Amino acid sequence: MKVTVVGAGNVGATCADILAYREIANEIILIDIKEGVAEGKALDIWQKAPVDLYDSKTIGVTSDYSKTANSDVVVITSGLPRKPGMTRDDLIETNAGIVKSVTEQIISFSPNAIIIVVSNPLDVMTYQAHITSKLPRTKVIGMAGILDTARYRAFLADELNVSPKDIQAILMGGHGDTMVPLPRYTTVGGIPVTELMDADKLDAIIERTKFGGGELVKLMGTSAWYAPGSAAAQMVEAIVRDQRRVFPVCVKLEGEYGIDECYLGVPVILGKNGVEKVIELDLNKDEMALLNESRDHVLEVMSVLDRLK
Amino acid sequence: MKVTVVGAGNVGATCADILAYREIANEIILIDIKEGVAEGKALDIWQKAPVDLYDSKTIGVTSDYSKTANSDVVVITSGLPRKPGMTRDDLIETNAGIVKSVTEQIISFSPNAIIIVVSNPLDVMTYQAHITSKLPRTKVIGMAGILDTARYRAFLADELNVSPKDIQAILMGGHGDTMVPLPRYTTVGGIPVTELMDADKLDAIIERTKFGGGELVKLMGTSAWYAPGSAAAQMVEAIVRDQRRVFPVCVKLEGEYGIDECYLGVPVILGKNGVEKVIELDLNKDEMALLNESRDHVLEVMSVLDRLK
Amino acid sequence: MKVTVVGAGNVGATCADILAYREIANEIILIDIKEGVAEGKALDIWQKAPVDLYDSKTIGVTSDYSKTANSDVVVITSGLPRKPGMTRDDLIETNAGIVKSVTEQIISFSPNAIIIVVSNPLDVMTYQAHITSKLPRTKVIGMAGILDTARYRAFLADELNVSPKDIQAILMGGHGDTMVPLPRYTTVGGIPVTELMDADKLDAIIERTKFGGGELVKLMGTSAWYAPGSAAAQMVEAIVRDQRRVFPVCVKLEGEYGIDECYLGVPVILGKNGVEKVIELDLNKDEMALLNESRDHVLEVMSVLDRLK
Amino acid sequence: MKVTVVGAGNVGATCADILAYREIANEIILIDIKEGVAEGKALDIWQKAPVDLYDSKTIGVTSDYSKTANSDVVVITSGLPRKPGMTRDDLIETNAGIVKSVTEQIISFSPNAIIIVVSNPLDVMTYQAHITSKLPRTKVIGMAGILDTARYRAFLADELNVSPKDIQAILMGGHGDTMVPLPRYTTVGGIPVTELMDADKLDAIIERTKFGGGELVKLMGTSAWYAPGSAAAQMVEAIVRDQRRVFPVCVKLEGEYGIDECYLGVPVILGKNGVEKVIELDLNKDEMALLNESRDHVLEVMSVLDRLK
Repeated sequence: MKVTVVGAGNVGATCADILAYREIANEIILIDIKEGVAEGKALDIWQKAPVDLYDSKTIGVTSDYSKTANSDVVVITSGLPRKPGMTRDDLIETNAGIVKSVTEQIISFSPNAIIIVVSNPLDVMTYQAHITSKLPRTKVIGMAGILDTARYRAFLADELNVSPKDIQAILMGGHGDTMVPLPRYTTVGGIPVTELMDADKLDAIIERTKFGGGELVKLMGTSAWYAPGSAAAQMVEAIVRDQRRVFPVCVKLEGEYGIDECYLGVPVILGKNGVEKVIELDLNKDEMALLNESRDHVLEVMSVLDRLK
Repeated sequence: MKVTVVGAGNVGATCADILAYREIANEIILIDIKEGVAEGKALDIWQKAPVDLYDSKTIGVTSDYSKTANSDVVVITSGLPRKPGMTRDDLIETNAGIVKSVTEQIISFSPNAIIIVVSNPLDVMTYQAHITSKLPRTKVIGMAGILDTARYRAFLADELNVSPKDIQAILMGGHGDTMVPLPRYTTVGGIPVTELMDADKLDAIIERTKFGGGELVKLMGTSAWYAPGSAAAQMVEAIVRDQRRVFPVCVKLEGEYGIDECYLGVPVILGKNGVEKVIELDLNKDEMALLNESRDHVLEVMSVLDRLK
Repeated sequence: MKVTVVGAGNVGATCADILAYREIANEIILIDIKEGVAEGKALDIWQKAPVDLYDSKTIGVTSDYSKTANSDVVVITSGLPRKPGMTRDDLIETNAGIVKSVTEQIISFSPNAIIIVVSNPLDVMTYQAHITSKLPRTKVIGMAGILDTARYRAFLADELNVSPKDIQAILMGGHGDTMVPLPRYTTVGGIPVTELMDADKLDAIIERTKFGGGELVKLMGTSAWYAPGSAAAQMVEAIVRDQRRVFPVCVKLEGEYGIDECYLGVPVILGKNGVEKVIELDLNKDEMALLNESRDHVLEVMSVLDRLK
Repeated sequence: MKVTVVGAGNVGATCADILAYREIANEIILIDIKEGVAEGKALDIWQKAPVDLYDSKTIGVTSDYSKTANSDVVVITSGLPRKPGMTRDDLIETNAGIVKSVTEQIISFSPNAIIIVVSNPLDVMTYQAHITSKLPRTKVIGMAGILDTARYRAFLADELNVSPKDIQAILMGGHGDTMVPLPRYTTVGGIPVTELMDADKLDAIIERTKFGGGELVKLMGTSAWYAPGSAAAQMVEAIVRDQRRVFPVCVKLEGEYGIDECYLGVPVILGKNGVEKVIELDLNKDEMALLNESRDHVLEVMSVLDRLK
């Protein structure tokens, strides 16, 4: 299996490192536009192999997409953070341009790849990769739900003082503050979390999760990468090893949940074909209202993209 | 950390192998009464270390309990299977005698060990180890729920065609056909299984789980060992690494669920002190009725033991 | 990737279990002629998946080779142990018949598989699989050297009181007492073992290794399986993940070491095509003499096979 | 087990991440003087736990050493890189002051910790930690040899096109360009590398290794962290799990190799007491000459430190 990670920033390099360390792919290409960075990080990751005992080699490349040819899966992490003075629409325009350009080059060398988008704003960048690549929705998906859920689960593990291994959760909707919390679908070893924690504490954790990315930026002065890189690697693993994992993933809805033509986070089964199935939960009225709000938000951002065309 | 596994049959040897392979303990003692068997299996497991790259050494011992001194955790797998012509009470008497003798020897060399019982009939053998060892209930527990749950989860993964990694479940009560199924506490990535499967199919899986051990005996002509040995090793790991995992474990109830002085499978938090907490679920009337039935069954078997005293 | 293991005895089942546990293949077929055994063990291995968290499923099959179709790698463990009253030639005849029959069926459904033979006597059974399958020598190899080396390394780790992870060694020639020890090619973290141990102790360890299989039979009353099953799984892994590992493997020599048309253990590079390269060591006269002795022994056993044709 | 990592830069954070991911310690403290950075990285690492399924928690701390109390092992990564205009002696003075201050605070809260130094210049910073802590030499060691060796092994794996898993090597002496290459002690699956590669190619690889750190700085504009952080974590693992690994480690020589009172890289056995044994190789005259050169270099740098006292 061959996997390409576009963007050798912290998230991309972390993703490549995990793919190598866990031997998820034989051949990993890490590509960046900045001369030397991908080569350096890839070499450092390879120099770790004799210590941690893996054979998968990461190869760093500057801009030469021919080296990515015939990738089975491609992770796109490229994009700029929002800079002072930039409007939201400026940011969307800039990053959409980057994702469009990357996708074109990827598709020209790997027309059958499955594409996982990590660039922000997530939902709309995934949409961009979809329209540029012309690939079916099952093969162009975004990583947000696994990360949001991981943060939520870590906070729950802290509060309950139990292993994070034993907490499962589904979060839906957009990434970050437009996410749709679903306490009914949060369990501890199968036990609904609502039996183990008061509503107040759970609400506080949900709020903290919504702004989980920002909390880390405030502490570190830059975006997080360990959990994001790892979450992207887990999606790659599910596809490459055909694991049929149940994950919340950003996928284009085509009628599910009564929503159409909108990229949104929902639970899916992830396997060798990408999205093997979109799972439709029996949401109640309040949950559906939140999901529709999230949809409206994403559609509004998607419309910025449409205006740019 | 030092862990002793008593009984070098298939289940005990599998447990020791996993403890070594995953480096859960530095030092593992595998002890049996049959000359050579524990030594042979331990040596074979050690000869695998250069291939699978672990340092933990399993040492095989025939009957000499001084070698088990200062164990942190002890797994007891000893006991005979039921033979033709043997009544159930005969079997209980025989195995209770074995567990009593093993426990006495263990305790004399490792007075502070945490004891995990795997011998059958499980609930009553755990009780035997408790009364013999005089250790608090938090330190004498039985392995049944993880195994029953693992079988249930494997069957669900098959039926739903999703990864077994994404299925969580709690089963309570006695081991095997007296277990208490709890479909409300069975989830797939946090999604209640009842949203994903009809009641008929789920019922069929529950029935199959109850007789899961027998299904394997029928196929192989002997009891299973891969899942049982692994389930015991997972309990050891949770204790040794203080993981605070949420597992269904056979523990003496002292008022929880309105039940007293009865060893029964319930969810607990398992950590460095053994049972860190018994989790009390909000069972409904039907579920409580099933749990009480299971309790009655166990108490009845425990009474055989009391008659023997 | 699809891997078939023929023979659901202890070695075959251990091999399948490791392939599943480490997710080396997606799909693992365990096939046996004895009704139910493969099904039972495969099911038990699958029931461990929710505990040890792997997705690879082992499927048990009785005799129906159509289920093995399109396997990438096949491990053959079938064969009988020597029974009282059986001459060596009787044993060879019996097992050669079994390996021939198995190979024919495997090849009819998986004409491009790479075949790893574990059946005994190893060198000659590998030869049998080669002539029956008509596959090139790079794709029909035997497992012996990794096992003999693993035992040798375990004994060295004991004597030196260091981690088995840090001991590397090459042993050549036939399996068991006809193996060719090469102390010059035994190192501890790169340090020749001869700098760390006297010749006497090393000689004693070499002798013990030659009879390492017998030592276990004497202790357990049956052949070992943990290290043998694991050694076979490691060969599968090197092929499936194209790891280009350097292992001693039983392969047909075609002029290397001045030896022709003889299956013998030599170091090779093992990758996706099977034997990627036979490594020719600069043996000295004494070492060559031992290798030639080993060759003579194997050729003599191979001649029994030729007489049977 | 409790492990503290001082310095939340790239190397320190990578080390903490690996300790958590592989559950090498239950409790990991990451401490830094820069407000928020350690907290942020530790939180990001913890948010990865629900994805990669580990229980070990990393806790980030700003400057408050009371949180490091009773650590079993401490890794010191603190120190500045050389800045333009700084003389070598300025750099030594600055970093020695940092290491001295860190060591004093560590020792006041964890008087029995084993200290692993990663700060540069390595040999002399380890010496500084030794004299400040007053701990025996077995408990104050430096990480350099594993990293240099890892780079060397990665380059060899590339050149030979074999798995890095199968390459073992010992490098001695100082870190970087004063290291002492030992081609005689470099093996591929036990086979001396000199049988597999011409001297010219091997020499080129040795030269590249000496400047391996600089190669990465040139590519990335900053020092490497994946392999360095992982190498430090491997030393922690060997101690915490008492693995008795054979590694080249920077340790104070007290007469070994005819060298006294000098911190220098030599092979040791690393276990629960730190350095369990210094291994003395049978070096030839040329190798000893190189080692003495390396010693002279280190002593000269150490003398800068002595002048500062």
